[in-house]
Amino acid sequence: MAKTFKIIPGSITAPSGFLGAAVFCDIKRLGTGKGSNKGKKRDLALIVSEVPATVAGMFTTNQICAAPVKVCAERVRGGEAQAIVVNSGNANACTGKQGMKDAYEMTAILGRELHMPEQHIMVGSTGRIGVTMPMENLKRGILDAAWQLNSTVKNADAVAEAIMTSDTRPKQIAIELQVGGKRVRVGGICKGAGMIQPGMSATGKRPAAAPQGLHATMLCFITTDVAIEAKALQACLQEAVAVSFNRITVDGDMSTNDTVLVLANGLAENAVLKKGSKDLAVFQEALSHVCLELAKKIVRDGEGVTRFVTIRVNGARNFADADAAVRAVGNSSLVKTSWFGGDPNWGRIIDALGYSPAKIVEEKVDIAYAAPGSKKLVYSLKRGQPASTPFKTLCQIAAEKEFELHINLNLGKGSAVLYAADLTEEYVDFNKGDVTDPSSMGG
Amino acid sequence: MAKTFKIIPGSITAPSGFLGAAVFCDIKRLGTGKGSNKGKKRDLALIVSEVPATVAGMFTTNQICAAPVKVCAERVRGGEAQAIVVNSGNANACTGKQGMKDAYEMTAILGRELHMPEQHIMVGSTGRIGVTMPMENLKRGILDAAWQLNSTVKNADAVAEAIMTSDTRPKQIAIELQVGGKRVRVGGICKGAGMIQPGMSATGKRPAAAPQGLHATMLCFITTDVAIEAKALQACLQEAVAVSFNRITVDGDMSTNDTVLVLANGLAENAVLKKGSKDLAVFQEALSHVCLELAKKIVRDGEGVTRFVTIRVNGARNFADADAAVRAVGNSSLVKTSWFGGDPNWGRIIDALGYSPAKIVEEKVDIAYAAPGSKKLVYSLKRGQPASTPFKTLCQIAAEKEFELHINLNLGKGSAVLYAADLTEEYVDFNKGDVTDPSSMGG
Repeated sequence: MAKTFKIIPGSITAPSGFLGAAVFCDIKRLGTGKGSNKGKKRDLALIVSEVPATVAGMFTTNQICAAPVKVCAERVRGGEAQAIVVNSGNANACTGKQGMKDAYEMTAILGRELHMPEQHIMVGSTGRIGVTMPMENLKRGILDAAWQLNSTVKNADAVAEAIMTSDTRPKQIAIELQVGGKRVRVGGICKGAGMIQPGMSATGKRPAAAPQGLHATMLCFITTDVAIEAKALQACLQEAVAVSFNRITVDGDMSTNDTVLVLANGLAENAVLKKGSKDLAVFQEALSHVCLELAKKIVRDGEGVTRFVTIRVNGARNFADADAAVRAVGNSSLVKTSWFGGDPNWGRIIDALGYSPAKIVEEKVDIAYAAPGSKKLVYSLKRGQPASTPFKTLCQIAAEKEFELHINLNLGKGSAVLYAADLTEEYVDFNKGDVTDPSSMGG
Repeated sequence: MAKTFKIIPGSITAPSGFLGAAVFCDIKRLGTGKGSNKGKKRDLALIVSEVPATVAGMFTTNQICAAPVKVCAERVRGGEAQAIVVNSGNANACTGKQGMKDAYEMTAILGRELHMPEQHIMVGSTGRIGVTMPMENLKRGILDAAWQLNSTVKNADAVAEAIMTSDTRPKQIAIELQVGGKRVRVGGICKGAGMIQPGMSATGKRPAAAPQGLHATMLCFITTDVAIEAKALQACLQEAVAVSFNRITVDGDMSTNDTVLVLANGLAENAVLKKGSKDLAVFQEALSHVCLELAKKIVRDGEGVTRFVTIRVNGARNFADADAAVRAVGNSSLVKTSWFGGDPNWGRIIDALGYSPAKIVEEKVDIAYAAPGSKKLVYSLKRGQPASTPFKTLCQIAAEKEFELHINLNLGKGSAVLYAADLTEEYVDFNKGDVTDPSSMGG
């Protein structure tokens, strides 16, 4: 299918009718801020639609799930929203009843300020786990940020920065497409870095058969001016997340706070998209593209990451097996450290396949390396037997910043892809913690 | 139960009638050895009983399983053996039909030399995956080593060294006990270091409900002069491995070669132990102790390991849940890196519990730290709420080389323990591979 959209500059404020705002209010309580931005990274942001929008969301399936996730999972069911308040520096996770009260209060403060029903306000948090929110600072921040909305500056860059934690750079994208003859835009921002192997569902509840090893805080906020019914939007988001955020891993750890939210405010004035609309596929393609590009940005900017590896498993008995196999490889410490060294160590790969819950028959397994997007597969193992490819040839592919790994189990038609990363000394150094600073507890 | 055994010096040659031999025969083909030991670590060893012994074994449940594992799994069913030939430097895994032929041939060479039926000879390998065995070197090595058996030196230390790969030190133990009025000895050696999360079964087949995440090459050889029926020995070994080697993890990767073998030659002349013998419990306790001490040595000497953490999960719905929970914590990159930093980061621990397949209810979870063996639990989380323990107090415990983590899910009676390790820059550095040396492919 030819791409039916084009990439444009900007992100969440590219679609009509969206505004952003971001401030520093010292949520980590560094004790230096007085609401000013003097030298401190912004830590609180607002995304606001000028008109009420339909909303859809996907949330972590971690059984330990943060208060803001619970609030959003409940409110998206209403299908309507107009604003998002989000902070970094504190995850508001494992904070009990006070945490729930604080999450609701964040939306109530903004609701009063913007004259919106608080039920139409979503909330997101990322940062430290197990510490109650510094509500004085948050209140000051929300009021400061709301004031910013009166300016003509749209602040998308500042919002993308405000949600960062261990990210080294902001992650943004915007695209433009035609829906029923109308110009539609989709914009998105996200943050990731560590504790990244999302497994999200629409309710935050795990599916009956929980995918093996679903295990980041990743936050993603998408805006669009398309007109779409809430149910259709949720279905599109579910499909988009399934092929993007739920297919990445940095360190195999699934966060308590993973959240993706989409606001669609209808200002493009297309005929409202609903189940069965012939233009739905075009919007789906656009939304999936936005999610996939943002998801890949998370892996490439993962903590300490130097290599981006696309792992493709084909020929599994079924999807569950393919998924289990691809995650065993993508989360193996030994496989990941070998990638760091640029070492095409397929012995570790087949070892990981063998201990995965997927059915594997040694005599059937193919393992091949390829340049990104290339159809030219260079085999290291064919039907369980070492291929004659010179080790040097494999090394050349594995030495690149990005490459693909093609695994065929030759047992069936199940396939799965995982966008994975190497494991580096920098990752360990970054995460070993600073016991002089309890705020280093990620979440 | 008071301990009914005492620790004595030595290892596999402490029990009556066992001999060892070890040589360097350049299995990694460094190209420098001519059967001499000049400056090179020994890489081939023999363990031989003067008389036929009963045998029991436990093997990796990795679906990709090395040729020597297949040979042993088949031969232990015969219940009788007299010798073990073992090499480091090449795992003889993913080597197809040639690999099977080579494994059989190793036992045949030794059988001819020692005038034993080759069916009574077991074989073990550890090292590189996917490269056929250098049989010329192996043959020379086996003949050299067999010649050594004529000496009066028992060579236990040399055997313990010969099986090492990335281990920094040999691992040995011997104990003495009384069985039916007779002095019985049990000795053991093992190797580990990386690719360590064994999940072994008697047949090498996975149990119907494969324990979650079972994932080293670890090799362990145990000798004893007790008289015991093969079936009873297998049952005792199964129980001993269940509470020792199958309860450790270094990096969460299960090897293709994990093997534990026991030879019991009966020279202690006790009344033959069988199912129902009242002295079986005493032997079981001794064997379990030998396995547990060797298993802990593997974790403490794991690649780059600086901290040894005993994780205890109690109050799970059942054992499967407790096991899933304890492995999620013990294999989380974020939890392991925080241990490296001496950081009691319980936020990451509850996050890992939350994404594990085990049922978790946030409001019920307790997390506490303790000094090794101490009953004094210092809580960081009680019933899902951060405890009032000062962060400094937790840091003091987590700063030690060894500590215990007590997790209570408060949902049932399932419990499980896991002996785990930190994840360090040294691990990454060691495993990132050296692409100038394809023999760095571990297995």
